[in-house]
Amino acid sequence: MAKKILITDPTLRDGNHAVRHQLSRDAFIAYCKAAEAARVPIVEVGHGNGLGASSMLVGECSLTDEDILKISREHLHESRMSIHVIPGFCTIKRDLTRAVELGVDVFRIGTHCTEADISDRHINFVRQAGKEAWGILMMSHMATPAVLLEEAKKMESYGAEAIVIMDSAGAYLPDDVTERIGTLADGLAIPVGFHGHNNLGMAVINSVAAVNAGATIIDGSIRGFGAGAGNTQLEVLVAVFERLGFETGIDLYKILDAADIAEKTFNPVAPSISPLSIVSGLAGVFSGFAKPVARAAADYGVDARDIFFGLGKRNAVAGQESLIIEVARDLAEKKAAAAKG
Amino acid sequence: MAKKILITDPTLRDGNHAVRHQLSRDAFIAYCKAAEAARVPIVEVGHGNGLGASSMLVGECSLTDEDILKISREHLHESRMSIHVIPGFCTIKRDLTRAVELGVDVFRIGTHCTEADISDRHINFVRQAGKEAWGILMMSHMATPAVLLEEAKKMESYGAEAIVIMDSAGAYLPDDVTERIGTLADGLAIPVGFHGHNNLGMAVINSVAAVNAGATIIDGSIRGFGAGAGNTQLEVLVAVFERLGFETGIDLYKILDAADIAEKTFNPVAPSISPLSIVSGLAGVFSGFAKPVARAAADYGVDARDIFFGLGKRNAVAGQESLIIEVARDLAEKKAAAAKG
Repeated sequence: MAKKILITDPTLRDGNHAVRHQLSRDAFIAYCKAAEAARVPIVEVGHGNGLGASSMLVGECSLTDEDILKISREHLHESRMSIHVIPGFCTIKRDLTRAVELGVDVFRIGTHCTEADISDRHINFVRQAGKEAWGILMMSHMATPAVLLEEAKKMESYGAEAIVIMDSAGAYLPDDVTERIGTLADGLAIPVGFHGHNNLGMAVINSVAAVNAGATIIDGSIRGFGAGAGNTQLEVLVAVFERLGFETGIDLYKILDAADIAEKTFNPVAPSISPLSIVSGLAGVFSGFAKPVARAAADYGVDARDIFFGLGKRNAVAGQESLIIEVARDLAEKKAAAAKG
Repeated sequence: MAKKILITDPTLRDGNHAVRHQLSRDAFIAYCKAAEAARVPIVEVGHGNGLGASSMLVGECSLTDEDILKISREHLHESRMSIHVIPGFCTIKRDLTRAVELGVDVFRIGTHCTEADISDRHINFVRQAGKEAWGILMMSHMATPAVLLEEAKKMESYGAEAIVIMDSAGAYLPDDVTERIGTLADGLAIPVGFHGHNNLGMAVINSVAAVNAGATIIDGSIRGFGAGAGNTQLEVLVAVFERLGFETGIDLYKILDAADIAEKTFNPVAPSISPLSIVSGLAGVFSGFAKPVARAAADYGVDARDIFFGLGKRNAVAGQESLIIEVARDLAEKKAAAAKG
């Protein structure tokens, strides 16, 4: 019997990163219709950083959360609607309560891979409201398989009904995925999933590795639409899974049509793997750092790539932008010392 | 000890397909310099279909073979220069003789995967001239591992000093590569190589699979520059090989610089995986058919993707464009019959 895989499609959420959260009403409508036609089981929508994240600091959405959820709900019937929820950005009282009212089906509650405990109340709230709650572990390459399992178990104990690990920096090779997903699939009673990024050209094969190691949930984004080097390209994923005999329930021709619609409507140029994306993947550093790193490189006269590797050595995570200056200053000092001989 | 991999870079040859063979003198100069600086061991140059192929039929080059070889030779010092040679396009008397005089180091002599015997005289000539001759088996997914080995052995017996199999349709998944390269590496006394295309997002991991199965030569093209979904992206390959402890001798930062130079000079938009590329990979059909297939689809009112799958079933190879019409007509007839009930 064919192995069944549940595909979650974050095109209208992770893809928002690629356009500074400016996806238009027309884009939401066009893509929800296309995904629904292709029988994509779950469509994730919202600001790149999820519900309640629109702000001066991380970027303001052109649409409110309320608008996005209403527009998407109107065009998703068979497909379930999911949102990304980061405690800290997303409050329970203001945001989650309203999201429940607006008909969100699946709440994907994400934390840094070693901070699962801040997801406790959010997961609880969603379950109490009778909705589906998943736990998402971001930047998962920064934790060992054993630590990931511990963190995932916390989320499971709070009521999470699935765990998805994200390769936020696109740092994994297939063996890394096999090891981590294998550990989670063995140690958890709930389904396990994988969300890839393509910095090292591995997003699709990493997803295959995840399934072979026991994952049953895979994220894929049309045309790879997403930040930096992009996410796992959904239509390629569907083709490869079909070839391997994994059943996604998604119609191949219709998902190829969805790619054409995305190209015409909101994604004229597909993401590609830039030199800095590669460095970001190798260093295991969030590619969202690219812009401040480039600025610091110019200010201090050092190589942006050295800054990335320096950040990787210091295990920098999102929010630690101040580390960029610190690393750049160190590199500039070393360079000056070397020049003096 | 680190495993040593010999990288051949067909950017200035396979990439020519992506720009209808219009790569300019400036592009050749800029990229030869960049590749040389990055210590790329072998740089392949020329018309997309190789020496002597420029013609009305397959596309006219903006530069003559003579120009290309002279310009490239002038800017390649440590890096060796290679050319792609298809007997039929490339004659011994006119083309190969002159290529030897102009200082080509490596002659990569390619045939369809089941027609190695037409490479006999070309390989012989190159060896007699004291130059290096490799045998290239194109569209290699169309032969079983055993047949590929037979064909490769013929080339070896003619004097080929290496065998490279090409995944011309981007049809392989890693296990396919493992099986074929493993068979060749076991059965041949000469080095074995792999040339990937990215139709199913597998080019980099297929190259890794090739090395793990015994290949020591891998082709990679900057920014994946090549026909359709593109070739194996060279700078990603170098990064991943470095991470895996395979030694390419290529400088990572300098090859990343080369990608920036390519972007600015001749490749503003990197190749991406289009819906038709995916179908081409799944069907195992040369993606160069895309345009005539689109035309036939319009003429006969049928789906281009159905034509591709139809061509795949008939094992269509380049040059058999007439099959496209045949398949399109069949599909149209079936459609008409179905409409009648």
